[in-house]
Amino acid sequence: MGSLPLDTLHLLDPDVLANESRVVVDFIADYYRDIEQLPVRSQVEPGYLSKRLPDSAPYLPHSIDAILEDIREDIIPGLTHWQSPNFYAYFQANASTAGFLGEMLCSGLNVVGFSWISSPAATELEGIVMDWMGKMLKLPSSFLFSGGQGGGGVLHGSTCEAVVCTLAAARDRALGKIGADGITKLVVYASDQTHFTVQKASKLIGIPPSNFRAIPTTAASGYALTPDSVRSTMEADIAKGLLPLYLCATVGTTAVGAVDPLLELGKVANEYGVWYHIDAAYAGICPECRHHFDGVELADSFSMNPHNCFLTNVDCCCLWVRSPAALVDSLSTGPEILKNKASDAKLVVDYKDWQIALSRHFRAMKLWVVIRRHGVANLMEHVRSDVAMAKHFERLVAMDRRFDVVVPVPRKFALGCFRLKPRFQGDDASELNRRLLEVVNSSRQAFFHTMVAGIFVIRLATGATLTEMRHVEAT
Amino acid sequence: MGSLPLDTLHLLDPDVLANESRVVVDFIADYYRDIEQLPVRSQVEPGYLSKRLPDSAPYLPHSIDAILEDIREDIIPGLTHWQSPNFYAYFQANASTAGFLGEMLCSGLNVVGFSWISSPAATELEGIVMDWMGKMLKLPSSFLFSGGQGGGGVLHGSTCEAVVCTLAAARDRALGKIGADGITKLVVYASDQTHFTVQKASKLIGIPPSNFRAIPTTAASGYALTPDSVRSTMEADIAKGLLPLYLCATVGTTAVGAVDPLLELGKVANEYGVWYHIDAAYAGICPECRHHFDGVELADSFSMNPHNCFLTNVDCCCLWVRSPAALVDSLSTGPEILKNKASDAKLVVDYKDWQIALSRHFRAMKLWVVIRRHGVANLMEHVRSDVAMAKHFERLVAMDRRFDVVVPVPRKFALGCFRLKPRFQGDDASELNRRLLEVVNSSRQAFFHTMVAGIFVIRLATGATLTEMRHVEAT
Repeated sequence: MGSLPLDTLHLLDPDVLANESRVVVDFIADYYRDIEQLPVRSQVEPGYLSKRLPDSAPYLPHSIDAILEDIREDIIPGLTHWQSPNFYAYFQANASTAGFLGEMLCSGLNVVGFSWISSPAATELEGIVMDWMGKMLKLPSSFLFSGGQGGGGVLHGSTCEAVVCTLAAARDRALGKIGADGITKLVVYASDQTHFTVQKASKLIGIPPSNFRAIPTTAASGYALTPDSVRSTMEADIAKGLLPLYLCATVGTTAVGAVDPLLELGKVANEYGVWYHIDAAYAGICPECRHHFDGVELADSFSMNPHNCFLTNVDCCCLWVRSPAALVDSLSTGPEILKNKASDAKLVVDYKDWQIALSRHFRAMKLWVVIRRHGVANLMEHVRSDVAMAKHFERLVAMDRRFDVVVPVPRKFALGCFRLKPRFQGDDASELNRRLLEVVNSSRQAFFHTMVAGIFVIRLATGATLTEMRHVEAT
Repeated sequence: MGSLPLDTLHLLDPDVLANESRVVVDFIADYYRDIEQLPVRSQVEPGYLSKRLPDSAPYLPHSIDAILEDIREDIIPGLTHWQSPNFYAYFQANASTAGFLGEMLCSGLNVVGFSWISSPAATELEGIVMDWMGKMLKLPSSFLFSGGQGGGGVLHGSTCEAVVCTLAAARDRALGKIGADGITKLVVYASDQTHFTVQKASKLIGIPPSNFRAIPTTAASGYALTPDSVRSTMEADIAKGLLPLYLCATVGTTAVGAVDPLLELGKVANEYGVWYHIDAAYAGICPECRHHFDGVELADSFSMNPHNCFLTNVDCCCLWVRSPAALVDSLSTGPEILKNKASDAKLVVDYKDWQIALSRHFRAMKLWVVIRRHGVANLMEHVRSDVAMAKHFERLVAMDRRFDVVVPVPRKFALGCFRLKPRFQGDDASELNRRLLEVVNSSRQAFFHTMVAGIFVIRLATGATLTEMRHVEAT
């Protein structure tokens, strides 16, 4: 197993770090050289790995070469290769060289910037990079630190975390008025297409599950929320003695890429005094897509994940808040051990009070390197090419009489939804498509995933970093 | 600014990745070469960085050399160097070469293992490494997957997240019996020495802040919780019509390293039917410290952070749960888009239902590399040397008549607490120590931090990866 004697470890010795890192870098470069040949979806059976690895930790150290050999033999066959050019499942998790380098710098420096004083550059770079991103998305200045109206942004690990924190802020603002007992009266609104993490977050912060409204959408609105349906749902709740708390709108839903009408929904949200959150996809950085964000100025908070299509390795979620004071009121803690002059004088941001945990990754470094290494021009180009590939695939499907293209809406984004037409009347179309999906996914090539908007359809998400037109055509 | 033309980016091109990574690796190796010469605590003023960086993102890409030059000039001076051998503040965040390599592999592969099918090896390696860790800590088999009693472990980013999830599980189990309205009756118990994230987590999941009990501790019990104080506090709450929900005990508190009596507290917890969580420090992997864990078999859940003293780069928290089914009941979501045969047949673990977010880092890779590269023998040796350094420092302080050693308890761990004695009767001892701390922290050398257990004391946490006896003596 390649065990080494005890005295060969030199903790953080610069030469050892450099030498062993080069070996790992070469391993990862080789992985990307071979990735197109690997089956996209792992073909292993549940429990395969425990048959290959020892059941307890080694007493003596192993060499990095021995460890990499085991990764090659035992781990790689058990991975589903999210960076494969033939990966079209779930959503994208775009890695890039810059994202990899940024993560390397983040973990190499290994600082913990929970408050300004604990590493000022970590906090300040995050503020700067959030303003950069906000300007790229043309967010209103009320969301930017430089806007001078109290707003600002923070990096979380995931949308779910961003939603948990904004929900908690909204909840505590409401309970401050109506008392702690009121928690069972608060109601959260989203659509049946909204990412399920909003429902999870709502339950997590103590809203009774029966007070979450997944408002139905239909093909008529392109699976978008309508202001009327939100209004009537809120009215019905108020009539029952409940209190509308929070509305989540989405620009580019996970399943079909639907776009909720932000401006109209914002007016309803403001009228009923609820916290208005917008969960957005990536396309907004391109001027031709920016109109989908009209109405964002009515929102209380806005989130977007660079770890999806924005060439930033997992994990990274941007959250902007118009009143960070509401987040801080809900999430702050001030134990003696963390007291310091800069915080006491309120001269600085202490991000621990804008998030769930105390510890935090130096994610700003990663996002900053991604933006600088690519430049805004290349980031826009990447988004446009993803969308172009989805459109191209849709045209190919439309030319084939055996298939239907479902949902015309997502043509805006990098997503296509389609289904096999039943050949004979009475054929079970859902069963037919389920079988097609099984066959494709077992073919070691493409990997789609399914969604239901009433019916069973097959979904193709373009946008893996390495995907090119030729992969889409072959599919 | 080193802008490049648009066509120089080759996304995930293996040669570019390898070349640019080598440049970054050399940069990080140089950082560790120089780290002892850098002032531990950054000397910058609030707002320094926005004066140095542009206020919007570059349109064209920058070279990695230009980016690294800016990190050297603008970012490094703004960091507090957590890996400096003279860093004794807060708690340890031990980086290591192995932790760095593990993180590199994790972000290089960039898979998202939220459910088994989305990357089987990510889930299975996590199960295996959690069993390895559990055996190293001699946890009862009821916490291990291999124990066959339904228990198992999961990697979170932070203790706060682990506490949020277990609290939510406990809450939903209780509300299932008493109804959603009962949430305002639930009470959470900890000590005034318990990490403040427990209080934050309790508020986050919707427990009214007035229902969190920070039970006072005293020097007489070494700042540990006593079973009697817990029992009487619970009885008083029950008398008021409230319902005890959750007790958190700590092995090695943040401020003074106090150890709560796990066995006695576990008996009280079990008697009152509350969820019993243990938040533990690192020392338990050494046989001579393992007795502090006696009583862990009575716990419902147990957490421990390898990103503190366990040579694992940020972030990484181990959580073991005796009944993961309770976590899953509270946190699971099953949208159509994530459905698959292995999950439906309940053959596999889907870690998305054991945590807050959907996305997840391949943290198991990092921890697995750390354990294998060091071996259990070196990990134990590292913990022992931290503790030996703290003892040595305490002896040096005790020999100096100007100082008092405060709290005899923490000698078990890598932590020393002391204060300057007043020279003349009537001198304000707290003010004296506050001034000493300011002087030391401004000296560019050491960086302690303060805590209060009624009085103002100075605290020294040994255990940064690079700290050696000579650094402790110089301090």
